[in-house]
Amino acid sequence: MITRRELEDAQAYAAAALDEAGIVLTDAERTKIEVADFGLSRLHDTGLQLLVYVNTDRCCAKELVLRPGQTCPEHRHPPFDGTPGKEETFRCRRGLVHLYVEGEPASEPACTPPAGVYTVAHEIRLEPGEQHTIPPGTLHWFQAGPEGAIVSEFSTQSRDELDEFSDPAVRRTTIVEK
Amino acid sequence: MITRRELEDAQAYAAAALDEAGIVLTDAERTKIEVADFGLSRLHDTGLQLLVYVNTDRCCAKELVLRPGQTCPEHRHPPFDGTPGKEETFRCRRGLVHLYVEGEPASEPACTPPAGVYTVAHEIRLEPGEQHTIPPGTLHWFQAGPEGAIVSEFSTQSRDELDEFSDPAVRRTTIVEK
Repeated sequence: MITRRELEDAQAYAAAALDEAGIVLTDAERTKIEVADFGLSRLHDTGLQLLVYVNTDRCCAKELVLRPGQTCPEHRHPPFDGTPGKEETFRCRRGLVHLYVEGEPASEPACTPPAGVYTVAHEIRLEPGEQHTIPPGTLHWFQAGPEGAIVSEFSTQSRDELDEFSDPAVRRTTIVEK
Repeated sequence: MITRRELEDAQAYAAAALDEAGIVLTDAERTKIEVADFGLSRLHDTGLQLLVYVNTDRCCAKELVLRPGQTCPEHRHPPFDGTPGKEETFRCRRGLVHLYVEGEPASEPACTPPAGVYTVAHEIRLEPGEQHTIPPGTLHWFQAGPEGAIVSEFSTQSRDELDEFSDPAVRRTTIVEK
């Protein structure tokens, strides 16, 4: 659960970060920036701000905005409706992001995960202009560097409600305190 | 056919436009900017500069860069391999672009097409932050405004070689003069 104030602060943070990066939004889009606390009520360490540009039954594009050190918790995108599930490409636009996926664990990982369940530790460092594509069904999590990050996500259809999180305490829905 | 000089000038134009818009490329990407003259050898009025970020068998993302007044000629994306064909969303990032699609023709269109075959005239004006999604199989063409344009394209798999152009003189391949 987050407070109304936390929601509005996070939206304002994301809008300002996108503006500083030269990414132009319409007025309507600025009001539609989503804030996810993943049900943990610790938005500053585990959370995400995102704007969905388009999400049809075939493809999807979003901007993801992370505060300094903020983490998107470990999850995977399962098959659905006869498809292999969501395939996604993360392209770093600003700041720095470390992406962790299945594979050989980093011997000296750059990031420490926040409280929760994190099982994969193969590290991919993405600076602006760098990108990585994640096949469907792959466990992954990511954390922004000390200046935060903006990441463009290009993918097949996004069905957030199907995401499978490693930590059973995580929920994809965010409740805003009345 | 374009000259080596035209190719290099167009790549440099696109790289500079993307840089000015705050869109960061890697050094490798800057060398991979494609220049299409659509076989017409009139790059300044009919042509396109583009950078493909990712193109898998499921989804694709590109940046399109147009010079002032430059036009991407009328075409459609046909079905292939049991799919309905390419669905694409154009999101204007910088400058101005007019997109023309099937539908009620504009009574006073903002653009005049260059020499060639242009049959659709339903006008969609896109300023930075505005976007439009084109279903597969829809005839469309677009022209940049007086300051050029940068357009992000989010789509299903791109198979440029299958594009069907209204003008039989148009080719998707560009030959660079030795």
